[in-house]
Amino acid sequence: MDMLRQGMIDEKTALKRMEPGKLDELLHPVFDKQALKNAKVIAKGLPASPGAAAGKIVFFAEDAESWAEKRKRVILVRIETSPEDLRGMNVAQGILTARGGMTSHAAVVARGMGKCCVSGAGEIKVDYKERTVEMKGKVYKEGDWISLNGSTGEVYEGEVPTVDADLSGDFSKIMELAEKYTQVDVRTNADTPKDARVARRFGAKGIGLCRTEHMFFEGERIKAMREMILSKDEEGRREALKKLLPMQRSDFEGIFEAMDGYGVTIRLLDPPLHEFVPHQLATQKEMATEMGLSIDEVKSACDALEEFNPMLGHRGCRLGCTYPEITEMQARAIIEAALNIKAKGCTVIPEIMVPLVGVIEELKLQAQIIKATAEQVFAERGDRVDYKIGTMIEVPRAALTADRIAEVADFFSFGTNDLTQMTFGYSRDDAGKFLKIYLERGILKNDPFQILDQEGVGQLVRIGTEKGRSTKPSLKVGICGEHGGEPSSVKFCASIGMNYVSCSPYRVPIARVAAAQAAIE
Amino acid sequence: MDMLRQGMIDEKTALKRMEPGKLDELLHPVFDKQALKNAKVIAKGLPASPGAAAGKIVFFAEDAESWAEKRKRVILVRIETSPEDLRGMNVAQGILTARGGMTSHAAVVARGMGKCCVSGAGEIKVDYKERTVEMKGKVYKEGDWISLNGSTGEVYEGEVPTVDADLSGDFSKIMELAEKYTQVDVRTNADTPKDARVARRFGAKGIGLCRTEHMFFEGERIKAMREMILSKDEEGRREALKKLLPMQRSDFEGIFEAMDGYGVTIRLLDPPLHEFVPHQLATQKEMATEMGLSIDEVKSACDALEEFNPMLGHRGCRLGCTYPEITEMQARAIIEAALNIKAKGCTVIPEIMVPLVGVIEELKLQAQIIKATAEQVFAERGDRVDYKIGTMIEVPRAALTADRIAEVADFFSFGTNDLTQMTFGYSRDDAGKFLKIYLERGILKNDPFQILDQEGVGQLVRIGTEKGRSTKPSLKVGICGEHGGEPSSVKFCASIGMNYVSCSPYRVPIARVAAAQAAIE
Repeated sequence: MDMLRQGMIDEKTALKRMEPGKLDELLHPVFDKQALKNAKVIAKGLPASPGAAAGKIVFFAEDAESWAEKRKRVILVRIETSPEDLRGMNVAQGILTARGGMTSHAAVVARGMGKCCVSGAGEIKVDYKERTVEMKGKVYKEGDWISLNGSTGEVYEGEVPTVDADLSGDFSKIMELAEKYTQVDVRTNADTPKDARVARRFGAKGIGLCRTEHMFFEGERIKAMREMILSKDEEGRREALKKLLPMQRSDFEGIFEAMDGYGVTIRLLDPPLHEFVPHQLATQKEMATEMGLSIDEVKSACDALEEFNPMLGHRGCRLGCTYPEITEMQARAIIEAALNIKAKGCTVIPEIMVPLVGVIEELKLQAQIIKATAEQVFAERGDRVDYKIGTMIEVPRAALTADRIAEVADFFSFGTNDLTQMTFGYSRDDAGKFLKIYLERGILKNDPFQILDQEGVGQLVRIGTEKGRSTKPSLKVGICGEHGGEPSSVKFCASIGMNYVSCSPYRVPIARVAAAQAAIE
Repeated sequence: MDMLRQGMIDEKTALKRMEPGKLDELLHPVFDKQALKNAKVIAKGLPASPGAAAGKIVFFAEDAESWAEKRKRVILVRIETSPEDLRGMNVAQGILTARGGMTSHAAVVARGMGKCCVSGAGEIKVDYKERTVEMKGKVYKEGDWISLNGSTGEVYEGEVPTVDADLSGDFSKIMELAEKYTQVDVRTNADTPKDARVARRFGAKGIGLCRTEHMFFEGERIKAMREMILSKDEEGRREALKKLLPMQRSDFEGIFEAMDGYGVTIRLLDPPLHEFVPHQLATQKEMATEMGLSIDEVKSACDALEEFNPMLGHRGCRLGCTYPEITEMQARAIIEAALNIKAKGCTVIPEIMVPLVGVIEELKLQAQIIKATAEQVFAERGDRVDYKIGTMIEVPRAALTADRIAEVADFFSFGTNDLTQMTFGYSRDDAGKFLKIYLERGILKNDPFQILDQEGVGQLVRIGTEKGRSTKPSLKVGICGEHGGEPSSVKFCASIGMNYVSCSPYRVPIARVAAAQAAIE
């Protein structure tokens, strides 16, 4: 930027010379350099989400919450995290896990939150019972201070002081430059109004992926969700869904308001239902009492949801196709929220996205439910709002039959996380075991979950885009997998003519620079 | 056939008019029609493997074996089966399971064995502890007689007499006709010399898929296999592999001898290692004692192998790439067996098949190990034998990059079971839950695990074949998934120019007629 100011290089050259990935470091707190010199490294894991953080060790999400309420700074230390830990992760300064790769639950969620995370620190020994963690032969207890560097994967003993990031100055000038040259829009993956606002500050032009399932884990909601899942018939499910409707609606209202004027792509329920049911006996008992069921009934209902390969199981639109009432409730919540926020004078552009479509009939069925529900809400309210119906392309078969799917879809969003899993046949949760060796031995050049595999997965993305537009030339196409924030992948998406990429809030600036570079190159 | 004999129709017309699927009924025992009239239906499941069988109820594979030794006829009744049940299944007259679809373990294995099976009889209640099964409100105990009709899925009370199939007469004339017109070879999927001989009698021209893992489950072998898996280092694994070598070699010898003059495609180790380790405490203790390990060590080693999505996990050539010594042992066993049988005057054509390849480097690495091992054995023996190295195409990425993979492969064999799983994103073990509803609501026209999905999966098969032959025009291409014995799928394979299809022994006649029909049409 100095050279640009001095007229030694022009804007395009300045942009081209940037390493978008390096921006990441500008966006997060860093350790005080002086203090770092004396800090002692006690473990090393993967640099799963950048930034620096210090806090007291806690091992359970509930503790993270209660300690945070007392204004204590904490680091959540887990063997691995699950959706049940979300609220604890949200209040922690940082997250340290013993297991899991760059795309493990902890890593993905932390990046989304812009929160420092070190994952897969295989050599630390977490003992939940004793509430201790052993690192480099020394035992650390709950309450002991540690510090994490999410940009390097290093874990330090004690409290290492941090320095905040500065978003003005050069950073904002770089963003202006990127804006001037880019041809691809950058959207964000955001599930909360807060994330949406952060991303908008970083220049996101809309939401490319709003996951609705995260909204079901908080407080009372999980109970209503469990009631829905454990119901024996459609009637029972509809009763429970009625309780969820106002909660979903208010979430969507907050997000629509934060994204006033921009499109908001909301994905319908995606994960297997098993992720929501209680796995501990105490919680199962509580559910049984609440629902007037026997503990055995609750237990066997939970067990019946277990799957050998949940990634390839009863999830995505397979839920909406087998339980249409879920789609109905979600469509209603979205349309009602849109009308409410429109009434406040905002411009609301809802885009309803059906996940995991593999056959055109799935999308047809879901679109039919969404349209019927929307028309009903419009009639009730005496007002209308424009909305779009689109689909994720994340199952190989969807890419291969995209010409058919585009008959129904207004837009495609490539979910390259799942598409990578199925195209390679790698489970993100398990691949760590052999991916490490594959990278060491040169069988793979990159981790395909971090850098889009252009040769294989990219081929499907290209086929899907071309086939889709062969049916509907105006089809809007984007990407919302983790790759949407990775520079080389963003450039690939730009090169095949995508309209937008979408990534977690803290990656938006990176994607914007990469997109501008793609346009110049 | 009567019309053909009387000169009313010609051979081609006769062939065209046949329903290949109906042949299945000719190949298996059926119930005595008179006796069937008085038989009482007590349950209904899926017609998983055709034929009729009667026997006494047993619930455990070991009991099936010990009862069979005493010449008792038994029906193995299980909630579901696993590879550990193989020997029990092999000696039972038939198999009845409460869970699992047409492609569940029980169904696939039973069809391979030509053994009657009713799967997924959801309403029967199996109680392993009490050794009872409740059907239509009545409790049946171990030792009670039941009869199964694997062609209809019906379960009868008591012993219904059966009548054997007749393979001479019209059946053999149909086979002659098929042979005259077919252009595609029909091979068989066979793991034992016995299966190979059965298939050869039905006209199979070689083995398209010999799964080596089944060989590891019997008696002492499973112990050596477990020792290999639980070893802490390469040295320990090599020690255990040494014990497995002579067992594998003798298996291959039997198969090569049975297939004298025809190609035998042997697939290297495929399933995740977790399938082989002991899951019960007693067996874990036994292993611990035998290997001089603590029970905790054995337990945690077993646990460490568990995966969230084993179907997308550490399996296939990912095993051979991370533990090259396994590939080395298997290559040695194959080549040594080939030389031994060649020395007996047989013509041996070994084709070594690397499973689950997704990137060319995997195949390169495996081919390198196989070639080096073969050359070493040739030098030791002072004799040589021609062999081929090929790969399964079962990961979407392999089909998409088949032009690269054909640089190394002598042949392709489409594994359409796995390819269907990954292309649709359906786990065979779990999809039952929603597939049923999908078929009812017309979202899918057929179960894609039974009838090849030509629109999606077939597209990948076509892309893979074309790209492979664009690099190597002489590339031999076949299919070895369950679809290799399904008439419409066989015709599709013939239409895109495959050299062969391979199916379980009892499906060979069906595939032969379908292949002949494809040639005529």
